[in-house]
Amino acid sequence: MSDKSIFNIENLGPPKYRSPLQLSTVKGDRIFNFVSESDRLVFDISMDYYNQCLNDGESPICMEKAGPRQNIFFDAKNTTAAIVTCGGLCPGINNVIRGLVMALHYFYGVKKIVGIPYGYEGLNPEKGHELIELTPDKVKDIHQFGGTFLGSSRGGQDVSVMVDTLENNKIDMLFAIGGDGTLKGVNAIGNEITKRDAKISVVGIPKTIDNDIDLIDESFGFQTAFDVASPILRDAHNEATGAYNGISIIKLMGRDSGFIAASAALAMPVVNFVLVPEMDFSLEGENGFFAALEQRLLQKKHAVIVVAEGAGQQLFKDRQIVTDASGNVQHEDIGVFLKEKISEYFKGKSPVTIKYIDPSYIVRCAPANSSDSVYCSGLAYHAVHGAMAGKTKFVASRVNNRYVYIPISEVTKKRKKIDLEGEFWFSVLQSTGQPFFLG
Amino acid sequence: MSDKSIFNIENLGPPKYRSPLQLSTVKGDRIFNFVSESDRLVFDISMDYYNQCLNDGESPICMEKAGPRQNIFFDAKNTTAAIVTCGGLCPGINNVIRGLVMALHYFYGVKKIVGIPYGYEGLNPEKGHELIELTPDKVKDIHQFGGTFLGSSRGGQDVSVMVDTLENNKIDMLFAIGGDGTLKGVNAIGNEITKRDAKISVVGIPKTIDNDIDLIDESFGFQTAFDVASPILRDAHNEATGAYNGISIIKLMGRDSGFIAASAALAMPVVNFVLVPEMDFSLEGENGFFAALEQRLLQKKHAVIVVAEGAGQQLFKDRQIVTDASGNVQHEDIGVFLKEKISEYFKGKSPVTIKYIDPSYIVRCAPANSSDSVYCSGLAYHAVHGAMAGKTKFVASRVNNRYVYIPISEVTKKRKKIDLEGEFWFSVLQSTGQPFFLG
Amino acid sequence: MSDKSIFNIENLGPPKYRSPLQLSTVKGDRIFNFVSESDRLVFDISMDYYNQCLNDGESPICMEKAGPRQNIFFDAKNTTAAIVTCGGLCPGINNVIRGLVMALHYFYGVKKIVGIPYGYEGLNPEKGHELIELTPDKVKDIHQFGGTFLGSSRGGQDVSVMVDTLENNKIDMLFAIGGDGTLKGVNAIGNEITKRDAKISVVGIPKTIDNDIDLIDESFGFQTAFDVASPILRDAHNEATGAYNGISIIKLMGRDSGFIAASAALAMPVVNFVLVPEMDFSLEGENGFFAALEQRLLQKKHAVIVVAEGAGQQLFKDRQIVTDASGNVQHEDIGVFLKEKISEYFKGKSPVTIKYIDPSYIVRCAPANSSDSVYCSGLAYHAVHGAMAGKTKFVASRVNNRYVYIPISEVTKKRKKIDLEGEFWFSVLQSTGQPFFLG
Amino acid sequence: MSDKSIFNIENLGPPKYRSPLQLSTVKGDRIFNFVSESDRLVFDISMDYYNQCLNDGESPICMEKAGPRQNIFFDAKNTTAAIVTCGGLCPGINNVIRGLVMALHYFYGVKKIVGIPYGYEGLNPEKGHELIELTPDKVKDIHQFGGTFLGSSRGGQDVSVMVDTLENNKIDMLFAIGGDGTLKGVNAIGNEITKRDAKISVVGIPKTIDNDIDLIDESFGFQTAFDVASPILRDAHNEATGAYNGISIIKLMGRDSGFIAASAALAMPVVNFVLVPEMDFSLEGENGFFAALEQRLLQKKHAVIVVAEGAGQQLFKDRQIVTDASGNVQHEDIGVFLKEKISEYFKGKSPVTIKYIDPSYIVRCAPANSSDSVYCSGLAYHAVHGAMAGKTKFVASRVNNRYVYIPISEVTKKRKKIDLEGEFWFSVLQSTGQPFFLG
Repeated sequence: MSDKSIFNIENLGPPKYRSPLQLSTVKGDRIFNFVSESDRLVFDISMDYYNQCLNDGESPICMEKAGPRQNIFFDAKNTTAAIVTCGGLCPGINNVIRGLVMALHYFYGVKKIVGIPYGYEGLNPEKGHELIELTPDKVKDIHQFGGTFLGSSRGGQDVSVMVDTLENNKIDMLFAIGGDGTLKGVNAIGNEITKRDAKISVVGIPKTIDNDIDLIDESFGFQTAFDVASPILRDAHNEATGAYNGISIIKLMGRDSGFIAASAALAMPVVNFVLVPEMDFSLEGENGFFAALEQRLLQKKHAVIVVAEGAGQQLFKDRQIVTDASGNVQHEDIGVFLKEKISEYFKGKSPVTIKYIDPSYIVRCAPANSSDSVYCSGLAYHAVHGAMAGKTKFVASRVNNRYVYIPISEVTKKRKKIDLEGEFWFSVLQSTGQPFFLG
Repeated sequence: MSDKSIFNIENLGPPKYRSPLQLSTVKGDRIFNFVSESDRLVFDISMDYYNQCLNDGESPICMEKAGPRQNIFFDAKNTTAAIVTCGGLCPGINNVIRGLVMALHYFYGVKKIVGIPYGYEGLNPEKGHELIELTPDKVKDIHQFGGTFLGSSRGGQDVSVMVDTLENNKIDMLFAIGGDGTLKGVNAIGNEITKRDAKISVVGIPKTIDNDIDLIDESFGFQTAFDVASPILRDAHNEATGAYNGISIIKLMGRDSGFIAASAALAMPVVNFVLVPEMDFSLEGENGFFAALEQRLLQKKHAVIVVAEGAGQQLFKDRQIVTDASGNVQHEDIGVFLKEKISEYFKGKSPVTIKYIDPSYIVRCAPANSSDSVYCSGLAYHAVHGAMAGKTKFVASRVNNRYVYIPISEVTKKRKKIDLEGEFWFSVLQSTGQPFFLG
Repeated sequence: MSDKSIFNIENLGPPKYRSPLQLSTVKGDRIFNFVSESDRLVFDISMDYYNQCLNDGESPICMEKAGPRQNIFFDAKNTTAAIVTCGGLCPGINNVIRGLVMALHYFYGVKKIVGIPYGYEGLNPEKGHELIELTPDKVKDIHQFGGTFLGSSRGGQDVSVMVDTLENNKIDMLFAIGGDGTLKGVNAIGNEITKRDAKISVVGIPKTIDNDIDLIDESFGFQTAFDVASPILRDAHNEATGAYNGISIIKLMGRDSGFIAASAALAMPVVNFVLVPEMDFSLEGENGFFAALEQRLLQKKHAVIVVAEGAGQQLFKDRQIVTDASGNVQHEDIGVFLKEKISEYFKGKSPVTIKYIDPSYIVRCAPANSSDSVYCSGLAYHAVHGAMAGKTKFVASRVNNRYVYIPISEVTKKRKKIDLEGEFWFSVLQSTGQPFFLG
Repeated sequence: MSDKSIFNIENLGPPKYRSPLQLSTVKGDRIFNFVSESDRLVFDISMDYYNQCLNDGESPICMEKAGPRQNIFFDAKNTTAAIVTCGGLCPGINNVIRGLVMALHYFYGVKKIVGIPYGYEGLNPEKGHELIELTPDKVKDIHQFGGTFLGSSRGGQDVSVMVDTLENNKIDMLFAIGGDGTLKGVNAIGNEITKRDAKISVVGIPKTIDNDIDLIDESFGFQTAFDVASPILRDAHNEATGAYNGISIIKLMGRDSGFIAASAALAMPVVNFVLVPEMDFSLEGENGFFAALEQRLLQKKHAVIVVAEGAGQQLFKDRQIVTDASGNVQHEDIGVFLKEKISEYFKGKSPVTIKYIDPSYIVRCAPANSSDSVYCSGLAYHAVHGAMAGKTKFVASRVNNRYVYIPISEVTKKRKKIDLEGEFWFSVLQSTGQPFFLG
């Protein structure tokens, strides 16, 4: 069996302490067992893959099971932990912060926990933000609010400066809650730490409302995102039926991946068209979007269209050439664009009433729903267990419905996208009734 | 006493039938009493007005109390009622439709009720929409949905054509659910009917999400409007605190009246500035909006601004002169405009992060909340009682917390606006802490 | 005119200070005007009453208009205010606390505000609870939560001891948020203060989820109460239709007054029977409840019954005699009782499936909805304006849709109940279709 | 490899028709591929199991992948499908009904779909219920409502009679939505059909709000169940903090499995104790529940307890012996019992205020949330694909996050319970802070 096939997690060093958690190592005593370093889970669960591995004499790709280790690297009572939240908002950030603080404080007895204010900026002393001391009392209610208790910012800071700050503040572990860029950033911090042999664990907790982190089942906040969008679609449907040939266009987040748009449409099956970044489509032509929309209106006198913000970028490229001098490119918007183009198309044909709804910020700053709340606690607890064990440069996440640790470098190789040939997209087509191809 | 001082309702003629309602005319029998034609309620309830009337020897302005009459004009079992919904959506329309159908069918035994599809268009045969038969079974669940079950359209149709349609379909009473324009329209229909001596009652039920119908306490749907907006403000506040100098701008409906913006800000007291159409304000200057905003950021590092869609039009007039040739005037938007101008103002001063949220359509197509649901039933029931009594060209509404009938001509004289010197606006200033004047 | 007819508010003494509020006394300057002590509003707004007063040469009963006075009794910067919350929970208590703190701190500059913990117990040093210092920062988010930030308790404490505590802590004004008992209690405190000539203002803010405080339009939290109950009724209706002859019984609060039950039924018109404490009804007999229910099931195969907790007490009296020795009287419950009795009635007749739902605590500990949130702020602001002016032994409330001050002694004379002959109950009968009498 | 290790699905016979679905069989054409009969997924995904199979030379237990087959058994246009819903309500039933009708009608062109009213009763002609014709138009909005559009009933009917009804109505496939008993029932129907060689497919869709169906990830409605319970816990926490030594007890569903109680507590981390049927606990004693509760009150002055309805049954057995003659056993209730016992325990010790909340029916008749809505559509679609392929006596469900088919006989072998030594329960202990053992 080849070791290459395993998503191994780096470690700061061999364990030095016994975990303060009063867990068990034997089955049948009704006490949870410490997770062994050798507990691993298969990534690809198809029998085809199993048989292929068998034929090739190779071990399947597998992942470290997340959970508390019996022997840990850090001496909890002398440990300082830090938490930073970066990038755009996403439901559940506060739940993760709360879960981290509770797990550090109550499970391990970590007495000092600091919040890094306003994202990576907070690790750059030049920005002048002060660290925030975090206690259970301070965070006990924050899960009921959207946003981030610590503040956030976009973009990175000088890695060396950030590691200096960690060292100067005697921080032993850094939990970074953020998306692709944040994770790459914290990995770079981890590499710099390795270089300095600084014994600081860095942990990522993938946060992306677009759900576009690779390999993992789902990122936190995603369930809430389409849960919040769902009644908006329901009501947009009422807008559409409220007028003769009424059309509602709802733009949802999804820069490169259309998961929110597609899932919201599945959750509220009043949607007739979902347009996502992963698909090519054309407006004109016999099989184009307009023809399909016209057919729909003919039959039902109304239509609901959900479009991901990153959909139809190919349509803009043409337009950009034409209106190049305007300088307004950044203001262009697939939702507004569609509204205009649909309006033009039907001019003279038949009257249509179009409503355009953009609930993006309403979605992303909502508090976590119950499903995400459970997930965020789990992520936080497992992140803490991993960090206390001395693991570093990993994310805590869930794959095949189980909590695992995966190297940050693996989940940031590429963005997850909807597989247009896969089961998920097929379910969207089944639900909406839209054709496989538009154009 | 002068009769001029009374908001008298026109009647199609003297009552010809006994009401089928089994009510009472005596007190103490635990059965509701028919409302007498002479039951009236005072409009202005201040003692100052009372004393003034006393001094002047004049009767105070008063209104007909709404409710079932013992003697009615129409023979219920041979009556045909029609319902039309016009103009933009508003929460509660379906509740009113449902309430009308239930009251006509169950209280009075009216067997034939028709829905006019797509607003006044539905009364113009040229548009080709077919009338919809309405029964309790068809409408029993519609109150749980936003929008309008009948469809709507904007604008009017030829009055004579519409009255022809009413006569051709032997319609005896028309309930028109709509705003200022709709009410004026149905009054015109009523005048044409009077001219033809056609014995058709026309009734208005004021629908305006902006709450800008004059004289009445509140229009239905308004409570829901700011109820739906309220959590959006809560979450927008989280957006603002999630970034250093974070600013959230939320645009809410309110073309000429800022009631939704102001009430939503009162309901979710995280708002720092409310800008409404009724107020003049300037951006620049020592006491201008920018200076106040800058001060706020200096103190608290975040700000939440609610702006009504019709606010700050004076700011556009200047701009319009400059960019006259663009032809994009209709696309200009106080929210987008503020976002741009604030961004410009702080450029070079200090970094700000601005989020712009426009939940207008989300608000207006929501289903009615409980408060509006109760109100809508009440409006519908009282509209039916009035129509069955042969009253015409009136609205059913609530004034001083009581159901009354008022002539349509009285409530359409002018739009209701926030009195900047009044108690309501003062409560907004108290809640937000914003200064009396901006500029 | 007779002074007896006016609900005059007692005052601690003539005003000694100018209000720190920068308001106006002239109209037309777009600045809110101080409210004059002579601003009064008529209580009964019917023309019949107006004419009667005219004939009798009497002035109508009127109320003091609430609002900020130009000349006030207290020197804000040296004033200490206290807040106490008593009795059962009700949505909006935290909004009122927050509004009081904000108004005292920001409008008037009161620097010291203390919270009395756990109701009147907190004014009894023997109980050992410590006073809580209240600041804007501490209360800024509490409006988003149900319950009471200060804790509550039932019952009273020795008046003399409580006044001692107020004096010992140099408290100048006490805001008591509570129901009938609390208001009587704070009035007694006020009387003791008068006796001691202690110059402490006592203010009541009526809190009763049952909405049974007399004279006022509505108590805060009531709108939320039936708003929260409403979807429960909707879903209970689904329970009922989910079984053949399915019956859902929902018990809602309402010890002596059935306002919540009746309003919830109006708000979610799927209810077929509302049983309230104000009505007599019998189960058996030709016109009894069972016969009506059986008829309903015959026609529609399901029924939804809403019962107020205090309804049908006359039915228990018989039962109590029978099961006297059990000592379980306090466990008897009209909901459970109805479930049993209905089950017995239909045994052998036809199968029924009965579900009993008691959401009482779910309703009362919910956070305030938007309507109540606005109302709670208004009540708090006006309570503060009145207290600062030196008024005492009054409640701040809303009558005929306007904020007014009324003597506590007037609103505690009797409980408000549904007038079975009035318009509100008639609307319930119209909505449910239930007969005027059951038995 | 041993065939025994595979959860094989029975089939009515070899496929006879080509699927009307326009899908693909090649990769890379952006069209979803038909699922092959040989597509299988591993059930146990741990590397330990993998290695064990490798050592034993055995194939791992695996499941049939769900999805549309290219060759199917039924001729869609001549197929009649039937749907029945049995047992207690659960969020999402209507979504499944809707999804089945849409998939049958739109995907396969099945023209005749009948609803069996009121559960298995509807298959017994003696009960006199009439079959309901189902069309897309009839079911298009039902997903927005809780309950079941078809009605339900508990218990079984004579299998032979039910199969007669299926045959007499020329029904080709029966979709049974229900829990353990329903699934066993439909399996028995399937066995009778096999005996008669009747070529009727029977399909189960596991419905159990308790989430106690074995092998599968989760049953539909479960996510909604704890989502609906979650704000009730939040508000119950406010009840608890609203009184000195306030205790809130919330009883949630869970006859033999405590998943809802545990998940709700995880989702709303204000809960201090979760008591589930899977655990033994004693009230008295040094390590008993009362001692732990007393400790909690001492520290925090309030406590929130969530108890599953089936928890603590061992406590009743003792009590039953004592109070045997009362005949009231069926009235006993762990929630009420706890309330009484806690009250007794603290009598004389220290005052406590206990509130007992039972939201069971409120939870189970709620409409599906977004997560369940997506899941229900997926279940329905896959059930239809399986039935059209001629598979029978299987459930459509999700395991390891993938849709699979499993024989009904496998999932009904035993009930799923919380593994007290497993990760899920450990997360509950982490979140609540309660000890591993109580007693």
